[in-house]
Amino acid sequence: MTTESNPSFTPLAEIGEFKLIDYISQKFHQRNASSLKLIGDDSAQLYYGNNHSLVSTDMFVHGVHFDLDYFPLQHLGFKTVVASISDILAMNGRPRQIFISLALSNHFSVEMLDLYYEGVLAACEEYNLDLAGGDLTTINRGMIINVTAIGEADKEKVVYRNGAQPNDLVCVSGDLGAAYLGLQLLEREKKVYLANPSIQPELKEENQYLYQRFLRPDGRDDVIKFLADNHIVPTAMMDISDGLSSDIMHITSQSKAGVRIYEDKLPIHPATVDVAEEFGMNPTTCALNGGEDYELLFTISPAHYEAITKNKDISVIGHITAQTGKNELVTKGENVFEMVAQGWQSYGSNPQ
Amino acid sequence: MTTESNPSFTPLAEIGEFKLIDYISQKFHQRNASSLKLIGDDSAQLYYGNNHSLVSTDMFVHGVHFDLDYFPLQHLGFKTVVASISDILAMNGRPRQIFISLALSNHFSVEMLDLYYEGVLAACEEYNLDLAGGDLTTINRGMIINVTAIGEADKEKVVYRNGAQPNDLVCVSGDLGAAYLGLQLLEREKKVYLANPSIQPELKEENQYLYQRFLRPDGRDDVIKFLADNHIVPTAMMDISDGLSSDIMHITSQSKAGVRIYEDKLPIHPATVDVAEEFGMNPTTCALNGGEDYELLFTISPAHYEAITKNKDISVIGHITAQTGKNELVTKGENVFEMVAQGWQSYGSNPQ
Repeated sequence: MTTESNPSFTPLAEIGEFKLIDYISQKFHQRNASSLKLIGDDSAQLYYGNNHSLVSTDMFVHGVHFDLDYFPLQHLGFKTVVASISDILAMNGRPRQIFISLALSNHFSVEMLDLYYEGVLAACEEYNLDLAGGDLTTINRGMIINVTAIGEADKEKVVYRNGAQPNDLVCVSGDLGAAYLGLQLLEREKKVYLANPSIQPELKEENQYLYQRFLRPDGRDDVIKFLADNHIVPTAMMDISDGLSSDIMHITSQSKAGVRIYEDKLPIHPATVDVAEEFGMNPTTCALNGGEDYELLFTISPAHYEAITKNKDISVIGHITAQTGKNELVTKGENVFEMVAQGWQSYGSNPQ
Repeated sequence: MTTESNPSFTPLAEIGEFKLIDYISQKFHQRNASSLKLIGDDSAQLYYGNNHSLVSTDMFVHGVHFDLDYFPLQHLGFKTVVASISDILAMNGRPRQIFISLALSNHFSVEMLDLYYEGVLAACEEYNLDLAGGDLTTINRGMIINVTAIGEADKEKVVYRNGAQPNDLVCVSGDLGAAYLGLQLLEREKKVYLANPSIQPELKEENQYLYQRFLRPDGRDDVIKFLADNHIVPTAMMDISDGLSSDIMHITSQSKAGVRIYEDKLPIHPATVDVAEEFGMNPTTCALNGGEDYELLFTISPAHYEAITKNKDISVIGHITAQTGKNELVTKGENVFEMVAQGWQSYGSNPQ
């Protein structure tokens, strides 16, 4: 459990569930007209009028998805919200409400709960969200978080994973692989610290970008807005949570198509390249298999090529092919490899 | 961990998250027109037209809310859904979709997951629900479940906790206290078994009603239908999860009113009386403080008295008063006591 700067420790049981909920919810105020009734009754009440609602739910477990030894609680609050609303954005929706269930051990204090919700509040401010409900319970050890995100979308503009067509351009926002290397750096610092607690962890300034990408990723609502402003409706879209090579296969398999990705088009931050080399890893492998980037991966008609290049934070990395099930990477040396799913899975051969 | 009848054990990791999700979702088929898109994309897509949506989320933790030593997984699947949709019913809504997140240790097999979802499926059939999404992840030990329930309600007929008026009748469905005693019986059997594992637990036939009330409670959608059929819109409503005396205070405090409950009107099953006496407990105390009944507690205008008495499964147990904050119990001996909140709280002096 991380040592927070606030030295006071008020046990949660001293306050009680109902007062804790009051205490938390007082810090949030309503931001969306669709939030008719928030915390305080049996359920929240929402109304989206003619729009459709989008719902996604995600569970985060200490020791599996995050490690409280190095994950500041404010960042955790922010990141768990971003990871959840990212699924709404990936359907071309606008996230509006979040519901947070927490199971906390008695190592948790009111002060620590406060830090977590500071991060949640920061995300609500950043993405214009309402905290609309939740649950709060005990657990023997650790911390479990479940976030349900709800958003709205215009009926005609919801984007699934199954609409990619041959010759569509494959686009990705931001850059890839940085979050994965941020995690590797933090894990390395933890090992050094555990081996010799007198050595203070050394979080190098030049690696700040990687730490931030892992600890406090951005939700790409700006990309959704850019697409809308430019009248671009992607043919397929999802967010990159497991890693590009794994996630693109959801699009190609559901669209009954194939894909060609070009290594030299992959957006990789210079800091990602440096640290990958420090770890003896190939930066391309990090970009393909890293995961937790929370960038948007989408396909568009070639007719939108010119419009999409106006946004310098979106890269065209390949195109959809008619060869169903063929997911190919064209390397810088112009070799062609079959991509394999190797993302972070909660279950499977490569659990995080 | 309970020993299930199926002796085979297929590790979850052998199948992997995505295939497990496919495997589970194949057993469910769409039941509601409002479910436009279910499992298989970034989020579910729903449309309620002119109706409002109601959303509630609940977390259930092994060792806090349930004990796998004696909780059959099928019943657990059913109960976790009922507990969640009960919050939608309590707003006078019609539950439509559920989202289930599970964190499971590697003591869990695919066969055990199957049993849990058998119970979920039974609840979906019983209450006409769609399993619309979820998450599946690992945990070091135990089992954590989060259920988000979504329903719809006519704009004009949503019922909150804050509308009770002086002289309104206080009504409750079913009977109270049985679930609490079912739990006491199961805990006693577990202690006997742990003290001497050669003694098989003795689940007496005459106590079946109490076991069932705890292990597989009903959601009272029939009551919501009865109210609608009889054009009765309660002035306030909630479900009884923490216990009558604790829950009625949410209604009186939010309605800025008081209440008088009459002990001789409390609906208590004969089996509840018998077992309470066996434990040396007062049946009234069990009915007031037991919790987990998932019955509906609501207030109606006195004008509906005749209509409500047509339903033999609804009891009028008292009335709302103008004395804000006075929550009184009139005993059979006509003494008047102030009721105190003593329900099951996840945090507080009396954790379950």
